[in-house]
Amino acid sequence: MRDFSDGPRHLSVNTATVRRQGDLPTIIEACARHGIPAISPWRDQVASIGLDRAVRLVKDAGLRLSGYCRGGLFPASGEHRAAARDDNRRAVDEAAAMGAPCLILVAGGLPQYARPGSIPSKDLEAARAMIEDGIAELLAYARTARLPLAIEPLHPMYAADRAAVNTLAQALDIAERLDPGGRDGALGVAVDVYHTWWDPELYAGIARAGRERRLLAYHVCDWLVPTTDLLNDRGMMGDGVIELRRIRQAVEDAGFTGFSEAEIFSDRWWSQPIDTVLATCVERHRTVV
Amino acid sequence: MRDFSDGPRHLSVNTATVRRQGDLPTIIEACARHGIPAISPWRDQVASIGLDRAVRLVKDAGLRLSGYCRGGLFPASGEHRAAARDDNRRAVDEAAAMGAPCLILVAGGLPQYARPGSIPSKDLEAARAMIEDGIAELLAYARTARLPLAIEPLHPMYAADRAAVNTLAQALDIAERLDPGGRDGALGVAVDVYHTWWDPELYAGIARAGRERRLLAYHVCDWLVPTTDLLNDRGMMGDGVIELRRIRQAVEDAGFTGFSEAEIFSDRWWSQPIDTVLATCVERHRTVV
Repeated sequence: MRDFSDGPRHLSVNTATVRRQGDLPTIIEACARHGIPAISPWRDQVASIGLDRAVRLVKDAGLRLSGYCRGGLFPASGEHRAAARDDNRRAVDEAAAMGAPCLILVAGGLPQYARPGSIPSKDLEAARAMIEDGIAELLAYARTARLPLAIEPLHPMYAADRAAVNTLAQALDIAERLDPGGRDGALGVAVDVYHTWWDPELYAGIARAGRERRLLAYHVCDWLVPTTDLLNDRGMMGDGVIELRRIRQAVEDAGFTGFSEAEIFSDRWWSQPIDTVLATCVERHRTVV
Repeated sequence: MRDFSDGPRHLSVNTATVRRQGDLPTIIEACARHGIPAISPWRDQVASIGLDRAVRLVKDAGLRLSGYCRGGLFPASGEHRAAARDDNRRAVDEAAAMGAPCLILVAGGLPQYARPGSIPSKDLEAARAMIEDGIAELLAYARTARLPLAIEPLHPMYAADRAAVNTLAQALDIAERLDPGGRDGALGVAVDVYHTWWDPELYAGIARAGRERRLLAYHVCDWLVPTTDLLNDRGMMGDGVIELRRIRQAVEDAGFTGFSEAEIFSDRWWSQPIDTVLATCVERHRTVV
């Protein structure tokens, strides 16, 4: 297991963690100042300053990327399907331009939530079929761009409105069907402890992901008790109940050598100064991750 | 598939659904008045009027039971383990006295939440081992009382503080280890759509539960989008996104012939008159369950 105690050299900060404190230039400057070597930016933050400027700022700051957020939201009906396809291709292009190691895919839930305006449905299996079709189609495009896709299973509490891929086993099954053998690294998974920590099959899934060479990203935060909001009450690493060391051990045993990416959606942390949040991420990365 | 359209003869109401509107005698009287043939009462509601009186009221009203809520909360340390064991044995005795077809087991999460005062831990696997030990011990007692135990997997969002049994497959695996073959019906599962609807393995799990003769209870409500509270924002059947008909079809195809039990924890429905809630349960049972 890698030693994180000497500093943040394996830390990445997902830029949503401090999205309310400033724009992308502010976040990039602050991360560089805190010695954080990598970020994972969001498309809207990039769009608001322009892709070219974002690419340049990241490069000038000497930062690397641990991912790019995000593609996906595949379930859709009618004209929303073509819009989803085009939107996802642009996400691939942006991720490639930014030098991201992968595009994070949040699969989408039922079509009326994934792509508003779509015909409402409760058919979760149909949504899952649309997800698989959408990933298959995007994979062909992403291969030409040499940009790996990382399917991120989301917590089951988001199955209806955010992602109907809800376990690591399910994500790996999809990857194996669409990219048997996985030899070129084009399709893998993102393991986020918040979404997966509860899973009785988590450690088996991590080991399998390693064997099948699918581990493209690793995200950390914590699960608070009580959790007061389904979306924006994630905990800072160490403040909740997730066995962070044990899971990282498993991920590294499975061969993962990438960044540990802190991704915290939290009204509490969004209300703190950016330097407080980043300093806390660095400290917790050293001591509890 | 059974025809529910002609009335509530397959409906049971979990008494927590109207717990804020009145005590158990009030609920029993109201259910009987609405033609609801069965209830599933909670221990605290029974305790507050006394077991003997509860037994008599249920009998005098001509009601049947679809379950008894609840045993479990197994993870504990020190003296809390013995207290949990004794508490669960009393629950078995009460369920048997009430004529319940099974005792619903909510497994408990980490020991500090399952049995407050226990030594805090983040070790989810250890909690799961305590759950299995606890069920094994209680099963021996429940067999002598001829009272089946129904393990209820809870939604993964409750893994830390309510139940670390979070999928139907996990519950069935536990049942099979503790009661191989399941021939005497002593140990089974309760399938609640709220906890299980998201599971990619749900239909496989229901079919397996049928094959292994473990289907002891079936609970319905609905999943709202958005869900604004992790505990008390369940939806009335038909108001959310769960494919109720499809899941009931699967449960009946698997051999289930028991009651469809409406269990709704909802600040919204708790604020309505008891007759409104029960009339709505009856109507939705006829039209969407």
